[in-house]
Amino acid sequence: MITLTTDFGMSDEYAGVMKGVIYTICPTARIVDLTHDIQPHDIRQAALVIASAYRYFPAGSIHVIVVDPGVGSSRRIVLLETGKHSFLVPDNGVATFLLPHVRQAYHVTQSDLFLPEASTTFHGRDIFAPVAARLLCGLKASQTGRKISPETLKKLPIPLPTIDNNILQGSVVYIDHFGNLITNISKKLLEKFCSGNYRKVTTRISEQKINGVHNSYAEADEGQFVVLINSRGFLEIGMNRNNAAEKLNVALDSQVYLRI
Amino acid sequence: MITLTTDFGMSDEYAGVMKGVIYTICPTARIVDLTHDIQPHDIRQAALVIASAYRYFPAGSIHVIVVDPGVGSSRRIVLLETGKHSFLVPDNGVATFLLPHVRQAYHVTQSDLFLPEASTTFHGRDIFAPVAARLLCGLKASQTGRKISPETLKKLPIPLPTIDNNILQGSVVYIDHFGNLITNISKKLLEKFCSGNYRKVTTRISEQKINGVHNSYAEADEGQFVVLINSRGFLEIGMNRNNAAEKLNVALDSQVYLRI
Amino acid sequence: MITLTTDFGMSDEYAGVMKGVIYTICPTARIVDLTHDIQPHDIRQAALVIASAYRYFPAGSIHVIVVDPGVGSSRRIVLLETGKHSFLVPDNGVATFLLPHVRQAYHVTQSDLFLPEASTTFHGRDIFAPVAARLLCGLKASQTGRKISPETLKKLPIPLPTIDNNILQGSVVYIDHFGNLITNISKKLLEKFCSGNYRKVTTRISEQKINGVHNSYAEADEGQFVVLINSRGFLEIGMNRNNAAEKLNVALDSQVYLRI
Repeated sequence: MITLTTDFGMSDEYAGVMKGVIYTICPTARIVDLTHDIQPHDIRQAALVIASAYRYFPAGSIHVIVVDPGVGSSRRIVLLETGKHSFLVPDNGVATFLLPHVRQAYHVTQSDLFLPEASTTFHGRDIFAPVAARLLCGLKASQTGRKISPETLKKLPIPLPTIDNNILQGSVVYIDHFGNLITNISKKLLEKFCSGNYRKVTTRISEQKINGVHNSYAEADEGQFVVLINSRGFLEIGMNRNNAAEKLNVALDSQVYLRI
Repeated sequence: MITLTTDFGMSDEYAGVMKGVIYTICPTARIVDLTHDIQPHDIRQAALVIASAYRYFPAGSIHVIVVDPGVGSSRRIVLLETGKHSFLVPDNGVATFLLPHVRQAYHVTQSDLFLPEASTTFHGRDIFAPVAARLLCGLKASQTGRKISPETLKKLPIPLPTIDNNILQGSVVYIDHFGNLITNISKKLLEKFCSGNYRKVTTRISEQKINGVHNSYAEADEGQFVVLINSRGFLEIGMNRNNAAEKLNVALDSQVYLRI
Repeated sequence: MITLTTDFGMSDEYAGVMKGVIYTICPTARIVDLTHDIQPHDIRQAALVIASAYRYFPAGSIHVIVVDPGVGSSRRIVLLETGKHSFLVPDNGVATFLLPHVRQAYHVTQSDLFLPEASTTFHGRDIFAPVAARLLCGLKASQTGRKISPETLKKLPIPLPTIDNNILQGSVVYIDHFGNLITNISKKLLEKFCSGNYRKVTTRISEQKINGVHNSYAEADEGQFVVLINSRGFLEIGMNRNNAAEKLNVALDSQVYLRI
């Protein structure tokens, strides 16, 4: 199985053409669109999406990510393997959250695997799609190029939460389709911070304070805020049947403060 | 075959992850996105979409709907069977228009069918996807939980058209991508109202009057209004190559009046 | 394989229902969404998308295009064959760029191939989908209707670039998801115009001048304009990590001027 994650949108032919190339080379392929609606050039968003998603796909899946503002430059295309999953990605930080799990990495250079006369502007079609298709149909990772050290892969600068003066400070790293504000505060960190005593936690974002940690959106009255551990395992600020991002008018990287 | 209808959008990984779970459990699955662009939490829109669509899928299809603002609350997840089609849905009214066709209903409670440690915020991934996959790969409906009476299923309050003083009054229940205004007036009701004499019907919505009932959008001049029986079998107000909803500036639940 | 190109959007059931019909008739079908986000009724956009895409799909693919404002009128539905690819389209100009490659053309009239009681408003579901499915599962093109001369097919009026006084004048014919401005100036024409001397070319659009022809978006500094030959083989004005259409505030059909 091949999954596709791009910032191509679905209004042009770009995503469809990648599928055409894959099916031409490997007719038995099964392709799933993870999303083509990453914000244009937003490497961090793509990095969070793939890290949250890949585990739910069958072992042996090849995850292709083409959020690639550096296409045609000297940035590398790399193939990463965790044992169960493979990732074909530009080396621009999009694999940041996967790196702890990467066992093998290859710099993809074997140009006879690409489409003939590969363009300098659409590597999704000319390089990523044909290489992924060949891998799915039997090519070995080692045949794509030379082995490289995972240490050399590019990492995004990632804001980490801090604890100071009994205040846990994190930030909003992702806003989803529902307007839920997803932070960089993991369940584990929250548990440690409040010693498992969720009821005593107060969350502040912008001028809004929210008491306690909820189990579901529906636990609050309609239109009220909730704080919960979301399905990715991170602290999230949302609303019951409403859009928290719009209501609070907050953007990515806004600060979030937790107190006991 | 499994169809998916959600309000998840396609910018996050949520819809893709459901597919990953399905393919992991039932590798031979065939999945069709009916839509992931139901307006967030809009149960009525989802109810109309699935009712208009399911008949066109092969017998044996399993239709999964996750428009589920009550996720994590006590709302039930139910499996409904019409004989040819199955529906795995939250019991929140989304099956309203299917109920006349439902022969068997089950309250899905068998938690060993779910993903381990199911979350309280993403039942699409943790409950709907794995249960649908197991059903497609051979699980019997009766193994998902206990049988319940279809009488106990939640119904949406649905506005019905009325006839008074030779005026047929209905309302706009759906606005599609083209800005076409779809009403709750069925072809059958219209036929009865005008005794099959479509030419004599005058439709009024907002301040706009439209004479007759057309056969197609192209029957009117470009930019002119049409009234027709649409592909769902309901009276619709549209325009030739233009957006009626924007032009008339009308919203859902606007009233529509027909006179002879 | 069947590809689908429509202006249906993905928020209604329309695209999904076409797939249901196809799978019901030809269960082994493989369907790829090229795009459902053609601007409503924009025949030229669809014509450019399919012309840019079809070559990348396997030989034997059936490409279905339903951008069809004349649905229900006397416009014909036609099946076009190039030898390797088939196209099932309304005869409204959407096949304009395919015509040079068309070897056989048929007017699709054999109504026993359609869904029973075909509507006058949704031929995608009632005619295009069932006919494409039957073709994929073995129906011969000649069984869909009578042979017609490709000369009779409708063509869009297409603006062509001109050269006058050493100025090459073209126009923007497509704006993609990234805001890249794609012109009607082909690589071949540009090469001839500048005798292969790309460095000496200056491009002007609106009040903006851009020197030279770049190889990739990343060749310019972030936020700077680039002019390049894009992956469709046409001159394109873009920006590195930014949206040229928004920045320049230009629309389709804007003029572009090249000088040596």
